[in-house]
Amino acid sequence: MTEFTALDHQHMAYALRLAERAAYTARPNPMVGCVIARDEVVVGEGWHQRTGGPHAEVFALRQAGEQARGATAYVTLEPCAHHGRTPPCALALIEAGVTRVVAAMRDPFPKVDGGGFVLLREAGIEVAEGLMAAQARELNHGFLSRIERGRPWVRVKLAASLDGRTAMADGSSKWITGEAAREDVQHWRARAGAILTGAATVLADDPMLTVRLADTEVVPPLRVVLDTRLRSLECARVREGGAPTLYVHDAAVSPPDAADAEFASVPSHDGRLDLGAVLALLAERGINEVHTEAGATLAGALLAGGWVDELLLYQAPTLLGEHGLPLLSGLGIHAMDQQRRLRVLDRRQVGEDLRLLLRP
Amino acid sequence: MTEFTALDHQHMAYALRLAERAAYTARPNPMVGCVIARDEVVVGEGWHQRTGGPHAEVFALRQAGEQARGATAYVTLEPCAHHGRTPPCALALIEAGVTRVVAAMRDPFPKVDGGGFVLLREAGIEVAEGLMAAQARELNHGFLSRIERGRPWVRVKLAASLDGRTAMADGSSKWITGEAAREDVQHWRARAGAILTGAATVLADDPMLTVRLADTEVVPPLRVVLDTRLRSLECARVREGGAPTLYVHDAAVSPPDAADAEFASVPSHDGRLDLGAVLALLAERGINEVHTEAGATLAGALLAGGWVDELLLYQAPTLLGEHGLPLLSGLGIHAMDQQRRLRVLDRRQVGEDLRLLLRP
Repeated sequence: MTEFTALDHQHMAYALRLAERAAYTARPNPMVGCVIARDEVVVGEGWHQRTGGPHAEVFALRQAGEQARGATAYVTLEPCAHHGRTPPCALALIEAGVTRVVAAMRDPFPKVDGGGFVLLREAGIEVAEGLMAAQARELNHGFLSRIERGRPWVRVKLAASLDGRTAMADGSSKWITGEAAREDVQHWRARAGAILTGAATVLADDPMLTVRLADTEVVPPLRVVLDTRLRSLECARVREGGAPTLYVHDAAVSPPDAADAEFASVPSHDGRLDLGAVLALLAERGINEVHTEAGATLAGALLAGGWVDELLLYQAPTLLGEHGLPLLSGLGIHAMDQQRRLRVLDRRQVGEDLRLLLRP
Repeated sequence: MTEFTALDHQHMAYALRLAERAAYTARPNPMVGCVIARDEVVVGEGWHQRTGGPHAEVFALRQAGEQARGATAYVTLEPCAHHGRTPPCALALIEAGVTRVVAAMRDPFPKVDGGGFVLLREAGIEVAEGLMAAQARELNHGFLSRIERGRPWVRVKLAASLDGRTAMADGSSKWITGEAAREDVQHWRARAGAILTGAATVLADDPMLTVRLADTEVVPPLRVVLDTRLRSLECARVREGGAPTLYVHDAAVSPPDAADAEFASVPSHDGRLDLGAVLALLAERGINEVHTEAGATLAGALLAGGWVDELLLYQAPTLLGEHGLPLLSGLGIHAMDQQRRLRVLDRRQVGEDLRLLLRP
């Protein structure tokens, strides 16, 4: 087990913060940060801003210049070893004369997967792995899910009253949560490669599902509508606003010619699309993280199927009564020992509402 | 408007804390604290421990002795002016030679209601009212509700999942919340003059509804079962455990002879007891604060009737699914503009659960 100093932790923590600056732009690539340091002094820093652009190490080495020689490089992910859209960063670090590389974690991407470390070590560079690995994994849980599990990280966003209702019986729900909560949601949308919803929600609310964040660079997430029989096409707002839209439907249904949307089919069972196939399809398209804003049926089916990685629940201090729509349907819970306990990762006030981040 | 110094605030805050020591024992009397101070120095302190015992001022004056002469007395409630079970405290303060009395609030009890202040002023003592009045009212909201509104302060305790369910469809609910939450409830029971429940809960759970707090002096709250047709008598645990029990039923039903319970009748409408009459009855019996542990029907009826002063909601990080029992029934909410917004007074973690204190 490599021992790391407090200074190592300090530089890596900074590299992780740098990486996160690209939360809305790096995908489908992972977020990566790099700090080049000579003892306490940071001589270069960088982060991977967007796919196709230079990697974090390149920015940091450029800034460090000759000071990189003999310095330590802190990277939140193993430096790449392959010629992709950019030359391998491992080689760049070697050429710059860095003598030690501290990496938070190995890159499981098949073209790297330890190859970067091998290159560095063969060049005589000291390599230490695993510093703040949990934080580094958390940072890129979407990317890691896609590479390691072949499916995106799935977050389900819900907004409910204290009595667990998301809307009136007629579907009306404007507004349960306050403006601060609704604005907060924009940041979670912006992190995601795709915003997933169902035909029922499109038909009920005709939502646009774009990211509305002023003065913030965001690569627009793909809007994905699960619509077995393509019955929600009349609601056009989900195809407006400048972001791409993908309808996923049953193979038996023929998609129309449409310039403003893509169509893809997956198998369905009893009129419901195979959610595993949907997620595999999205992973193939490079979607790391799926942000779901849907009704109780789709959200419940995702949870019941074991596809949900986290629930983002905004809870308003209000009561909607027992006729309101339930938070999640189809969980199939009939006895206390079937209840679904959740782990609370984060619980905070957002305006007048409470925001909970929960994981199964 | 009287101006109070920081020192005044300090002494009064201490007096309020002293008063609260009798939260489990003073009722039906209000909680009262008293501090006798000469500038910074507290020369006497006391609180009203239990009905029939000496008032806060008496304890504080005893401790102060001759040092009370020329001192200031801080009292959380106007000193009494009448000969009740004990002689009037206003006279005791006058006799002790106190020269200034600072009171957080007037006592609305008809036999006092300003009379204490009159006595003090007539004796040449400087009287200042209203310091930390909001806190003093909060401390005794039960007593004040009984005196000013002719009904107790009503708290409804609920325990639910994140999807707002209190139990499975078959009524089973052991356990949604954790041990820490269940222990926390004991303190809220202990504050109350009565623990209110319904026949349905007694039939479903056969609860004892006593206070279980080790090494703590508690005057056992009255257990009150609303049972229109007295159909829950077979469940005897609510009559065991050393606390008194009162069944409230419809006048058309004849109560049995029972040594272990009292019976009282109120009018009913459509088979449901008149909740206003129930609360008036409890106020007449000296109940300041009612702690309700009941099912969705009674809890919902109390809220729908406007009788609820606060909701104490324990929320467990779990999902019970849409077949679970609702938090509250009969709220009659059918449109978003009928939703019942609540004010969050306190929100804190209790073990793994979240505890919310809410007011309509």
